Amino acid sequence: MQTQLPIILASTSPRRRELLQTLGLPFTVQASNADETVAEGLTPAQIVEELSLRKAKATAATLKQGLVIGSDTIVVLDGQVLGKPADQREAFRMLASLQGREHFVYSGVAMVDAKTNQVEVAHSMTKVFIRSLTEREITAYINTGEPMDKAGSYAIQGLGATLVEGIVGDYFTVVGLPLQLTARLLTRFGIFLL
Amino acid sequence: MQTQLPIILASTSPRRRELLQTLGLPFTVQASNADETVAEGLTPAQIVEELSLRKAKATAATLKQGLVIGSDTIVVLDGQVLGKPADQREAFRMLASLQGREHFVYSGVAMVDAKTNQVEVAHSMTKVFIRSLTEREITAYINTGEPMDKAGSYAIQGLGATLVEGIVGDYFTVVGLPLQLTARLLTRFGIFLL
Repeated sequence: MQTQLPIILASTSPRRRELLQTLGLPFTVQASNADETVAEGLTPAQIVEELSLRKAKATAATLKQGLVIGSDTIVVLDGQVLGKPADQREAFRMLASLQGREHFVYSGVAMVDAKTNQVEVAHSMTKVFIRSLTEREITAYINTGEPMDKAGSYAIQGLGATLVEGIVGDYFTVVGLPLQLTARLLTRFGIFLL
Repeated sequence: MQTQLPIILASTSPRRRELLQTLGLPFTVQASNADETVAEGLTPAQIVEELSLRKAKATAATLKQGLVIGSDTIVVLDGQVLGKPADQREAFRMLASLQGREHFVYSGVAMVDAKTNQVEVAHSMTKVFIRSLTEREITAYINTGEPMDKAGSYAIQGLGATLVEGIVGDYFTVVGLPLQLTARLLTRFGIFLL
């Protein structure tokens, strides 16, 4: 493992921080206050790439040097983007619409070298199957509090693991930071994990 | 969540302990010294179910009451079972054979009620794709030490995450304890997580 550039994660998500720690690279955290509204008509892939890039660029703009990593994750059901639920009613509606079928999770990763302005951005997509849930189960899950700050109202790495029948693709894309893609993008800045 | 029975995990694997903690149930750990050799000619599904059951039964036999959970995981490539590598040479051989293609991971879960002797056992299977790896990358990965105590010589929840292109099925089956299956089996003992 050879790394010269200091790495900065432009996110306060404890899940992203934990995932990035898996790679064994030293890094610091400096969240950006990037605006998260996007233009109408973008595809899910375009949305997560644009938001990842916006986060990375906003943090990079405040630094003289360093490799800034931004990431964004959305849940997509029948072409509709599900964000974080505003309240328990919305969480209930989301989980009721996700249960018994498949949906897609998109995660973007962007890297910006604050000194050279080299930019790399990509995304990955994973299909997720949620098992059939009764209204009582959905309510019980909401009452655990877990759904409230999660895109799509569930956490695959938490109690939500018991709701997921299976996935097709990369697990870490669903948690919020695609590790294989992150490792691949790092090589474009001369950082090799293996 | 309603639980009367004390739950005992018949495994010292820190990974299984961490996964079981995800479910939010209190439990204790009491590993069994069950023999792990199996008869020739068993299918992968039969192997993981038999070993899971043997572990759970061995621990249950020492207890007056409680629900004992046993689990076993194997990696299967072209019908051949890959266990934990004996040394770095074997780890290299395994990783060289796994790279650039798909294999299967089987995990069994068995539960034994020490008082009533009610027994439930099942397994789940997940397909895993490992990306192409150079010999240099395989050696670098072995040098991290991560492969040495893992079936198949990789850890999907560690730096090995960067080797896995994707999976089809349940992620936790690959880590070593299928959480959805575990939650399902618990309901047969009157323990409902949601």
